[in-house]
Amino acid sequence: MSIPDTIAWDPEKECIRYIDQTRLPGHPIIVECRTVQRLAIAIRRLQVRGAPALGVAGAFGVALAAVTCKKKGLAAFLADVRRHGTLLAAIRPTAINLSWGVNRVLTAMERAESVRDAKQFALVEAQAVAREDEVCCRAIGGYGAALLPGTCTVLTHCNAGALACKAWGTALGVIRSAVRQGKDVRVIACETRPLLQGARLTAWELEEEGIDVTVITDSMGAHLMRGGTIDMVIVGADRITHDAVFNKIGTYMLAVCARHHGIPFYVAAPLSTFDPDHSETDVVIEERDRNEVATCGKRTTVPKGVKVCNPAFDATPMNLVTAIITDQGVLRPPIDMKGLRLNHPPG
Amino acid sequence: MSIPDTIAWDPEKECIRYIDQTRLPGHPIIVECRTVQRLAIAIRRLQVRGAPALGVAGAFGVALAAVTCKKKGLAAFLADVRRHGTLLAAIRPTAINLSWGVNRVLTAMERAESVRDAKQFALVEAQAVAREDEVCCRAIGGYGAALLPGTCTVLTHCNAGALACKAWGTALGVIRSAVRQGKDVRVIACETRPLLQGARLTAWELEEEGIDVTVITDSMGAHLMRGGTIDMVIVGADRITHDAVFNKIGTYMLAVCARHHGIPFYVAAPLSTFDPDHSETDVVIEERDRNEVATCGKRTTVPKGVKVCNPAFDATPMNLVTAIITDQGVLRPPIDMKGLRLNHPPG
Repeated sequence: MSIPDTIAWDPEKECIRYIDQTRLPGHPIIVECRTVQRLAIAIRRLQVRGAPALGVAGAFGVALAAVTCKKKGLAAFLADVRRHGTLLAAIRPTAINLSWGVNRVLTAMERAESVRDAKQFALVEAQAVAREDEVCCRAIGGYGAALLPGTCTVLTHCNAGALACKAWGTALGVIRSAVRQGKDVRVIACETRPLLQGARLTAWELEEEGIDVTVITDSMGAHLMRGGTIDMVIVGADRITHDAVFNKIGTYMLAVCARHHGIPFYVAAPLSTFDPDHSETDVVIEERDRNEVATCGKRTTVPKGVKVCNPAFDATPMNLVTAIITDQGVLRPPIDMKGLRLNHPPG
Repeated sequence: MSIPDTIAWDPEKECIRYIDQTRLPGHPIIVECRTVQRLAIAIRRLQVRGAPALGVAGAFGVALAAVTCKKKGLAAFLADVRRHGTLLAAIRPTAINLSWGVNRVLTAMERAESVRDAKQFALVEAQAVAREDEVCCRAIGGYGAALLPGTCTVLTHCNAGALACKAWGTALGVIRSAVRQGKDVRVIACETRPLLQGARLTAWELEEEGIDVTVITDSMGAHLMRGGTIDMVIVGADRITHDAVFNKIGTYMLAVCARHHGIPFYVAAPLSTFDPDHSETDVVIEERDRNEVATCGKRTTVPKGVKVCNPAFDATPMNLVTAIITDQGVLRPPIDMKGLRLNHPPG
């Protein structure tokens, strides 16, 4: 089965359509989202998640704000849409793509000389962001697939797949491209507590495509590395500074264990994930709700009153990264951020 | 609140009483167990778990087999009890304490000259095993507490606490002893997927005693180490060979990460956990049921048809172990197994 687009614009109904990822695995449920407020809730609840998909969501969110805005004068209109964009961008502070997508569309609207123009520019730019996302993923897939031997087992964490992007995926895009080239790739997917995106999403989308996948708990990766099962680790990224890769909590642990076992550790991400303006220490790591860790399914597993940590991301220092697979080619650290052709509008 | 004994012999009802650990956290439910078959189920389902507690369960299990055996002649009686003991010992192949406890009581019964003697010897020896377990834990606590500075944060995995022993605990015994000495110890408990013994049991028993505890997912340990939060790791063990420590899956990953960050990695275990007769490669790692990983609470999180790995334990090579805190003192690798005064009956 092929998977429907994670997120798309419905031109007839003038709304966003997305897969509610909290309802997976199972038959995908498509939600029609007609207000920015509803989109904000969807992003906060991780119904839409994954760095590149958040970029597309941010872009479509601004387009939705523009389409639904009732303000008449251009200045008031742009101010209102910008306010919505700023609110959206702040929901998930660590993933840079969200604010990147928001800012791309806001910047495109600045050329408008009328409200009608501005709405038009917003829609065109948001569609471009979405289209480019899939093009980028397929480019990442192509560059990355060349790094995989004919037969290999890849460990991945969380979901950097079609569901994390408009389609195809970053880390899983590399695997998809390699499989299309006829390579024999097996995937080990960390379940990725607390929200189990590895078990629920990565395993689901690979299984739907007939790609060999085995789920493990997050504590098993090192054990399999020591046993010789894992040939490489490939993960996605939520933000890449010159000195660190921010990605789902648990990524850093895998990077340390990969280094200990002499296993390559690859990051797959479009250049839109790069943050040339900041260092690791500037970046806020999103702390999420206690209940995500304190419950498993509907069962309370952590006794009342016991404290919980729930950072959504961690930072992997660049010296543990073998290479970053981007849409412009494979970059090996140290990364010269200034030398990259980044399409970053002023934030 | 003080926690009731994890497992004990009820002399009036001539049965085993244990806390059903699958029902924690919450008010502890005490089960009266009157048959070896029922005990076997309890061990298989991890209602009774934890290496030292399994040693006590094995010992009481043989005593229960003796007390309930209807065979008349001594030879037939001993053969029947031995058969039950062998079945019990095989339920959890990696944890050595279970077979150790079984064998200690079977060996004690060999001196008997009548069925009545044999029953008596079985009960006396099983009670001795239980008593010694608590004595060993308090000795481990004393030796280990001396390693902790006045203020520190200890990362632990799974449950090596009072619930894993008759009482007091091994890794958590060290922490209890340090706290009783007035040291300011904070505990970070890995939740320990798939069965969440860290969240459900370790957090519960520390919280009951007012010891500061914070639960994390298994993927967060390295992130906290990098942030400077963790001063040391202390875990229990299910079997210790001259070359490796077998403990709950995820222990090895923590050992690798501790080494990477220059953090001491301690194992706390009684000498009954040592296996002088085998090397790492001889030991079978128990593979448990798919559903433990494929479900979270009652929710199915891994799509049907997707493969799952579920090794219950991993092996940490001795070169990653800073020291083993035993009831006879602190041992630093390399471990001279032949030089230890091990109370191991022939298996």
